[in-house]
Amino acid sequence: MSTAVAEHLRTFDRLWADLDSVGRVGSGGYRRFAWTREDATLREWFAGEATARGLDLVEDRVGNQWAWWWDGPGSVDDAARAGQKAVVIGSHLDSVPDGGAFDGPLGVVSSFAALDALRARGISPAVPVAVTNFVDEEGARFGIACAGSRILTGALEADRARGLTDADGVTYVDALAAAGRDPQHLGPDAEALARIGCFVELHVEQGRALVDLDAPVAVASDIWPHGRWRFDFPGEANHAGTTRLVDRRDAMLGYADLVLQARDVATRRGCVATVGKVAVTPGGVNAIASHVTGWLDARGADEAEVEALVADLTARAGETLGSVTRESWTPTTRFDEALSGRLRAVLGSDDALSVPVLGTGAGHDAGILATAGIPTAMLFVRNPTGVSHSPAEHAEQADCHAGVDALAACVADLVAHP
Amino acid sequence: MSTAVAEHLRTFDRLWADLDSVGRVGSGGYRRFAWTREDATLREWFAGEATARGLDLVEDRVGNQWAWWWDGPGSVDDAARAGQKAVVIGSHLDSVPDGGAFDGPLGVVSSFAALDALRARGISPAVPVAVTNFVDEEGARFGIACAGSRILTGALEADRARGLTDADGVTYVDALAAAGRDPQHLGPDAEALARIGCFVELHVEQGRALVDLDAPVAVASDIWPHGRWRFDFPGEANHAGTTRLVDRRDAMLGYADLVLQARDVATRRGCVATVGKVAVTPGGVNAIASHVTGWLDARGADEAEVEALVADLTARAGETLGSVTRESWTPTTRFDEALSGRLRAVLGSDDALSVPVLGTGAGHDAGILATAGIPTAMLFVRNPTGVSHSPAEHAEQADCHAGVDALAACVADLVAHP
Repeated sequence: MSTAVAEHLRTFDRLWADLDSVGRVGSGGYRRFAWTREDATLREWFAGEATARGLDLVEDRVGNQWAWWWDGPGSVDDAARAGQKAVVIGSHLDSVPDGGAFDGPLGVVSSFAALDALRARGISPAVPVAVTNFVDEEGARFGIACAGSRILTGALEADRARGLTDADGVTYVDALAAAGRDPQHLGPDAEALARIGCFVELHVEQGRALVDLDAPVAVASDIWPHGRWRFDFPGEANHAGTTRLVDRRDAMLGYADLVLQARDVATRRGCVATVGKVAVTPGGVNAIASHVTGWLDARGADEAEVEALVADLTARAGETLGSVTRESWTPTTRFDEALSGRLRAVLGSDDALSVPVLGTGAGHDAGILATAGIPTAMLFVRNPTGVSHSPAEHAEQADCHAGVDALAACVADLVAHP
Repeated sequence: MSTAVAEHLRTFDRLWADLDSVGRVGSGGYRRFAWTREDATLREWFAGEATARGLDLVEDRVGNQWAWWWDGPGSVDDAARAGQKAVVIGSHLDSVPDGGAFDGPLGVVSSFAALDALRARGISPAVPVAVTNFVDEEGARFGIACAGSRILTGALEADRARGLTDADGVTYVDALAAAGRDPQHLGPDAEALARIGCFVELHVEQGRALVDLDAPVAVASDIWPHGRWRFDFPGEANHAGTTRLVDRRDAMLGYADLVLQARDVATRRGCVATVGKVAVTPGGVNAIASHVTGWLDARGADEAEVEALVADLTARAGETLGSVTRESWTPTTRFDEALSGRLRAVLGSDDALSVPVLGTGAGHDAGILATAGIPTAMLFVRNPTGVSHSPAEHAEQADCHAGVDALAACVADLVAHP
């Protein structure tokens, strides 16, 4: 048995190194937001890798990139109409503020390397294969996660997307126009969806389960129900030096209580709850807050418990609370059982039950496609820190390589017996 | 007895109406920040009122405006050298974000009206009189309150002031240059200070004491000791959906506890404490906070209690706290007892003890001048809401007129027997 690293894994390492500096900031993390200069650099990189492989690069109406491997006969659309729908693999390249290197890019780079592995083996797929880069998965700039896949499937209306603004007041329309896209073009893309037979997204694990299980790769079962709620606390602006405590209506107090209660109630209900964003009016050091808005992110394995958590917090806040607004809600998303079972069988070889199956508290484009009725599965690659959305996010090189080979094995099976 | 309103009070009403629309925003409050377009409009208004009265308009090295009434013999500087130092009255025209109409402008408008009253009575002052407009009292733009008087007296070093930046990254230097001033000119102005014999600042009350005391005007005793502290809470950035609660180091929790504890400890120690400003990193809805900074404003009648309050909060925060930084600290500022007593005697006519004396939790330019050794006093005008730094800040017209007459009476006495 040779100890030489296979060509496609060396390619993985090279591609990984290509992305190392793009959008990296002082913290060691990344700021790669949709339709920015950094995003354009990443998109050019994706196009370059597609071209270098002779793949056919297509951008759908939303801006998601697709690199097609299909030698015919006929076009990809012809094949889809003939029942030869595509095997799609990929992920996203954007990041949260000061995010890690792996969340997203690991899936895209692994997909190119897996495709190389198949070609090196001389495999000629019976159906088209595509590597995809979904735009704006993190929603870091405009506030809506998975915007690229949501607009594609119609889960996010194009008009609502066009009206979104970033922190500088730039609208989605302006951002698209600045990136040379036609904002009026934005909208669901039935043709792009009709080409997809199944979608497999490889992703770095965002917890420690695979560390405890001592396994490099897992198959996903479902995405936990999750939502975002905006809690608005009204107060009365007043002078911090001259207003007696008993005369105050300080909106910051209700907010602070929400933060502490969210942790307590989530612990009691077996959920996770986070308040990671706050806006204060007027926000001066010597001014009592006249309005504070806190955003709650809540998730859990059980939908009823997550809903009860929000109800508990609302009841607890009582009169200090002006309003609660549910900004998003996604029920439990189950991945395709047949497809997931098949991947476990491929990866387990002798014993499919030996391959771990994990639920996840994170949303993914794969979840959006699953909700739209597309057979979808995910692979997770071990993360020794368990940390994600942070510069500390990590995966060992050997585990990344194991992920590439797992993905290649799955795709080889899917294209051989579609 | 005539019911006709005196000419100088009608002038007060007219001047007050002139300012009504300058820098007014949708909230009904004002945004009048130093060296902005709104500030320039207010400065032009001040210059126009000075000119209309034949007063000599001078701008010191810092940008504070002085409107001089002095018919000689000799210049104001000659008079000062001869021991005829000036009686200075006035306040400021800038505001906090969404501030009220009265904090600052009431003192400036009342000063012009009081001067008119003295002239209408044919008074010929034995010493020069000036109405002043101190620039940048609120510090809303560059973060340092009373910047105009602090630079004037040297309490704020010119080099430090030049390096201050606003929320858009504009430096004090750039702001001065954009307003047509020479930033290199900025610095202490000993000549300007040497002209001042005493300073009397009339100001809207920023609490409810005069409502309870059923009096329209009070004399100030002192400014409470007050300070600002920055509390930095470190955390660990991580994914809000995938990180178990027990694995988290969420900086927001320590911050929230600080907010609630500040209220409790302040109540116990008879102080006031406010957390009105917070900064969160990374600040995403689905990201656990890796760093939260909260700013504490604390004041009280007793210095030791304020210091103990901060020590209590630091001890309570314990290991969740990274550091506490005292950003500013001003000990108790006592106004000139002789001058204040004289004003009470003038206003009380029969019984000086009948005029209320109030301490205040707010900083003022008068406090900066008092600290610099200038005999200084303040008059407060009743505020029926007790609210300040808010559109709800108010003073009834009759009380404003009473304030003008009180100020005129004080100045008449001071210029007759300097």
